[in-house]
Amino acid sequence: MPYFDVASTAPLHPVARQALLAALDEGWADPARLYREGRRARMLLDAARQTAAEAVGCRPDELSFTSSGTRAVHTAVAGALAGRRRTGRHLVVSAVEHSSVLHAAEAHEADGGTATEVGVDRTGRAAPEAYRAALRPDTALACLQSANHEVGTVQPVSEVAAVCREAGVPLLVDAAQSLGWEPVPGDWSLLTASAHKWGGPPGVGLLAVRKGVRFAAPAPADERERGRAPGFENLPAIVAAAASLRAVRDEAAAERERLAALVDRIRTRVPQLVPDVDVVGDPVRRLPHLVTFSCLYVDGEALLGELDRSGFAVSSGSSCTSSTLTPSHVLRAMGVLSEGNVRVSLPRGTTGADVDHFLDVLPAAVRRVRGHLAETADAPAEGGAEGGADLVLDTLGKRCPIPVIELAKVIGDVPMGGTVTVLSDDEAARLDIPAWCDMRDQQYAGERPVPGGTAYVVRRHT
Amino acid sequence: MPYFDVASTAPLHPVARQALLAALDEGWADPARLYREGRRARMLLDAARQTAAEAVGCRPDELSFTSSGTRAVHTAVAGALAGRRRTGRHLVVSAVEHSSVLHAAEAHEADGGTATEVGVDRTGRAAPEAYRAALRPDTALACLQSANHEVGTVQPVSEVAAVCREAGVPLLVDAAQSLGWEPVPGDWSLLTASAHKWGGPPGVGLLAVRKGVRFAAPAPADERERGRAPGFENLPAIVAAAASLRAVRDEAAAERERLAALVDRIRTRVPQLVPDVDVVGDPVRRLPHLVTFSCLYVDGEALLGELDRSGFAVSSGSSCTSSTLTPSHVLRAMGVLSEGNVRVSLPRGTTGADVDHFLDVLPAAVRRVRGHLAETADAPAEGGAEGGADLVLDTLGKRCPIPVIELAKVIGDVPMGGTVTVLSDDEAARLDIPAWCDMRDQQYAGERPVPGGTAYVVRRHT
Repeated sequence: MPYFDVASTAPLHPVARQALLAALDEGWADPARLYREGRRARMLLDAARQTAAEAVGCRPDELSFTSSGTRAVHTAVAGALAGRRRTGRHLVVSAVEHSSVLHAAEAHEADGGTATEVGVDRTGRAAPEAYRAALRPDTALACLQSANHEVGTVQPVSEVAAVCREAGVPLLVDAAQSLGWEPVPGDWSLLTASAHKWGGPPGVGLLAVRKGVRFAAPAPADERERGRAPGFENLPAIVAAAASLRAVRDEAAAERERLAALVDRIRTRVPQLVPDVDVVGDPVRRLPHLVTFSCLYVDGEALLGELDRSGFAVSSGSSCTSSTLTPSHVLRAMGVLSEGNVRVSLPRGTTGADVDHFLDVLPAAVRRVRGHLAETADAPAEGGAEGGADLVLDTLGKRCPIPVIELAKVIGDVPMGGTVTVLSDDEAARLDIPAWCDMRDQQYAGERPVPGGTAYVVRRHT
Repeated sequence: MPYFDVASTAPLHPVARQALLAALDEGWADPARLYREGRRARMLLDAARQTAAEAVGCRPDELSFTSSGTRAVHTAVAGALAGRRRTGRHLVVSAVEHSSVLHAAEAHEADGGTATEVGVDRTGRAAPEAYRAALRPDTALACLQSANHEVGTVQPVSEVAAVCREAGVPLLVDAAQSLGWEPVPGDWSLLTASAHKWGGPPGVGLLAVRKGVRFAAPAPADERERGRAPGFENLPAIVAAAASLRAVRDEAAAERERLAALVDRIRTRVPQLVPDVDVVGDPVRRLPHLVTFSCLYVDGEALLGELDRSGFAVSSGSSCTSSTLTPSHVLRAMGVLSEGNVRVSLPRGTTGADVDHFLDVLPAAVRRVRGHLAETADAPAEGGAEGGADLVLDTLGKRCPIPVIELAKVIGDVPMGGTVTVLSDDEAARLDIPAWCDMRDQQYAGERPVPGGTAYVVRRHT
């Protein structure tokens, strides 16, 4: 089954399944109890902590098991900020963090704190110098993911950790996407991860807090997991998480090369097979198994539907596949096309034949969506007060990718140097019209507010 | 295996195990995704919500799955208080709530709110009139458990709910101990529960918030579970939790009567078999499977160790078995003996033979502990300035139950009407010396602070 969305969640690793079943039998009791069943549960919990700590690269007493990666992030951010409240209430995050980090930052701001978002380049990489510039005397915490969950770009964690260390600011690394592949390098202070991302069961997150890092766990707490994760320990899942983390790490060296080569094949072949495609993310400093591309004139939801009917499960950062109607904040921060966005993340064991099958299926799927959209896109109404050299295209009320499709239809109708002004109230247009100009070698001339939306001005250049 | 501690955690029900295995295969994908695997996960999640909502007695859209019962309680308390912040910041809880409720109340007070603890009678029952008296115009929330987790007493939830409804205050019912037996009666506003208490897996709590109840989930939130439980859904465990809740409810009618009779046997026989025992909790309005008793002159940890060696896993609210060195807040609120405390909670399927075996083993276990303690307790130093009719017994630095054992040794040395003044710095003495007086028909004459501890005055009456 070609499930190509492990960056959302990985199928359960066989070792996780075995460990889970064994721990359901052996580790169901309360590890806080003194009788035999409780002592056995405590031993399993201690062993799991030891195993996970080795994989993280920390001491067992620095590691707590939380109920999810999201909960680990929320607790890490709140705990580190509270622990350094006397220093200040300034938080630094990259613009491409996982939503759990950004939600924690929003909560901090709603509570009176301040936050700075560090921007990224067009590959999605945050620069160490940008972190250095963002740090202030009142900065309590900086956060940087180990690798991006949408485009696979690996972040310069060691370098940013050094910058933070120099400034005396703790660095929290969200290692959700990379911990199954390798330990996080560098001198980080806090680390979080999520078991279901590496093939462990859902319901387990990791929270590591280095000794010496000031940390005050958010209330209410209880006595479990050093007061950092209240509630009865989910022991069978914790045991399965630790066992599978060790197993995937053992397999990582071999799988890494194999999957990286398959991703290279996708990165190379997709632009050859499908016209008007933008493959995004860093081609070299990237996760081995993940690649993202966007297709002009394509509705992301429709494309996912086509691929699903062909048996492929992939993900998308297009606005039209999300309930919020805004494109992925990652693609937005990178300034790249968001329409027709597809994220492919390969599970361990994916074969070359699986990938070739995907490459066989993709071009026709894109063609079908483009054909359908070209039919439904209106013949644009021309005109406007600016004269024959300029067009105004009213796409108010139309959703991505219709504004870009209509723009592409009319650009040939204005003379070289003439403009098309696209009126749109779709957030994705702000990203996709400049990205279209970039891809089609047209000149993007800026935006201005208009009643009911925004006017995006494109000057014909070719 | 005579595991008699299901009130801590229940062994996994066979239906839960089956459902968990099936859902690991069918429900591992992200239910937020639109592809086939995601849609299948969404269907399983919806079905589990429907099943659990029926058992709770609410609408599916009123029910969220959290990562634990503790998390459900923390979210329920914080969300209900935040939702009614304009009304006021006063919280009412019973003195015998689960620690998760009391921790949430402490966090609320640390954050500037106020809380009132409603006391209980000697059976552990909170009176509706006491709730009526505690409610104020600025009360934002009241909390009452459905049944007590340490002594099994069932609380008058319907009556308290009516009192709260009349006052316009929402009532949160922590149903962790009873939901496997029956729905919570009455007009409650919020409800919480924990799957591992009824034989479901760990990692799943329930949070029901009735439509119309003002609720603002604590930040940071995300889009999952209506913003009330951030993080990737623990779907296999959720499916198992819902399936097992239905299963245990189906078995409840038959098991209820059987276990209640076995508990009655323990309630009757233990005082006949073991001298100086106090069986606590309501003998009639109680959970079917739970009974608690305390044994004079017994160290709780030693007794648990003896019972463990005899193959019985039980729990204790004695101070000497907890890391905090304070006796159970439940026993303290009830004003009953805490030393040598044993909580027996029978799993479904417990046989009469299991219980008889326990009753065979218990008297010798208590005798062994008492014998050992009697040897280690000092011959008390007599004397003091108050003359021959009065004794001062210095037990400073000695832990429960030594102060009571030494008191019992010397009470015969003073004449009728004379006093023994026990100096102690063990918190348990405040509870256990008055309780001893009550059980031994001696007169408790009060306490006063002394350097390094407290003086408890006992007047000889028999």
